[in-house]
Amino acid sequence: MKKIAVVLSGCGYLDGAEIRESVFSLLALDTYGADIEVFAPDDKQHHVVNHLKGEEDTGSRNILEEAGRIARGKVSPLKSLNPDKFDGLVIPGGFGVAKNLSSFAFEGATFTVKDDFQNIIKSFNNASKPIAAICIAPVVMAKVLGDKGPTLTIGNDSGVAGVIEELGGIHQNCAANEICIDKNLKIFTTPAYMFDDAKISDIYAGINSCIKEMLNNA
Amino acid sequence: MKKIAVVLSGCGYLDGAEIRESVFSLLALDTYGADIEVFAPDDKQHHVVNHLKGEEDTGSRNILEEAGRIARGKVSPLKSLNPDKFDGLVIPGGFGVAKNLSSFAFEGATFTVKDDFQNIIKSFNNASKPIAAICIAPVVMAKVLGDKGPTLTIGNDSGVAGVIEELGGIHQNCAANEICIDKNLKIFTTPAYMFDDAKISDIYAGINSCIKEMLNNA
Repeated sequence: MKKIAVVLSGCGYLDGAEIRESVFSLLALDTYGADIEVFAPDDKQHHVVNHLKGEEDTGSRNILEEAGRIARGKVSPLKSLNPDKFDGLVIPGGFGVAKNLSSFAFEGATFTVKDDFQNIIKSFNNASKPIAAICIAPVVMAKVLGDKGPTLTIGNDSGVAGVIEELGGIHQNCAANEICIDKNLKIFTTPAYMFDDAKISDIYAGINSCIKEMLNNA
Repeated sequence: MKKIAVVLSGCGYLDGAEIRESVFSLLALDTYGADIEVFAPDDKQHHVVNHLKGEEDTGSRNILEEAGRIARGKVSPLKSLNPDKFDGLVIPGGFGVAKNLSSFAFEGATFTVKDDFQNIIKSFNNASKPIAAICIAPVVMAKVLGDKGPTLTIGNDSGVAGVIEELGGIHQNCAANEICIDKNLKIFTTPAYMFDDAKISDIYAGINSCIKEMLNNA
């Protein structure tokens, strides 16, 4: 049984992990027989967004506690994630990846990735263990592993694709139900809700294929 | 294309809608070609629960705004739900059903169901339109439609099953990947996370079957 770590960045696509992408990642991992552990940073979210109005809200939420809503309480602090104990890594998307795990939402190409998250990604990649990165998460792959020239997709957004290429990546356009495979680097990507209005069944199809291929290489 | 209303009760199984059950309901509805609209009460949640610790938290959240996290902002106030405009109703579970849409979590068999929610359920049932009720939601079916003697499942919890029978329902034991069908009343139920430790792929299998059968009767 392959042991897979899933990193969540909160609960809700505007200030945390994209909920559907997170749930579909867990469903696909379970469907193909993986043993799953979920992690999230034990830190304050960058901010809270009202998901009805799409506007910044008052108050403060903890990323780990909110991720617990998706994980049904079974979630551990990101700093306790030991890559040696896992066969692969999954990173669902949502603005949490660009606000809580990195600063991409605010700084564009010059953004930084949280140190512990960066080290985790490097450890998996150095050990030749597969990584599935969904939605906006491939831009973090480009930042951390850009010197290796990874082939990635974030759908067809020319702005974000341009950042990926600027960072050393090769961008490949994909539809929501398609995936991009970098066989050498074992990086598997799918656009998911980079297509805001995609059908939910297409989002699942893309994530399902992405996780299946990733597990085949674990 | 069948038009289906989905009623959410927040975002997170301890104080709102069970996230995975909600997402799988949407996925199954889309997979079988339904046109989906999501609704939730525009009210304060009964309370906020920290999903890491499982303990009541401070602060206050709005049910509609939190449901917007699952619905990606596309959610309308429950009071705007006009049953005449829909072919069927789906009610995912989570404690939100027992805390925000009814008082079952606090009062047992003597609980009450929010007026507008009760009226919506009666309207669908009176018009012979199908209802899918997931997890703990069947107990609300028993409360509102108990005089018709509906056959329902909430898994195998003898306490909750006892309440269903006390209210006039007939309880049928089911596993997480199974469904219970009341063909005459067009009520479709599946236990989902009434089995706390069920495999996520079994939860999806149960909800998928439940929604498929419900749509076949819409």
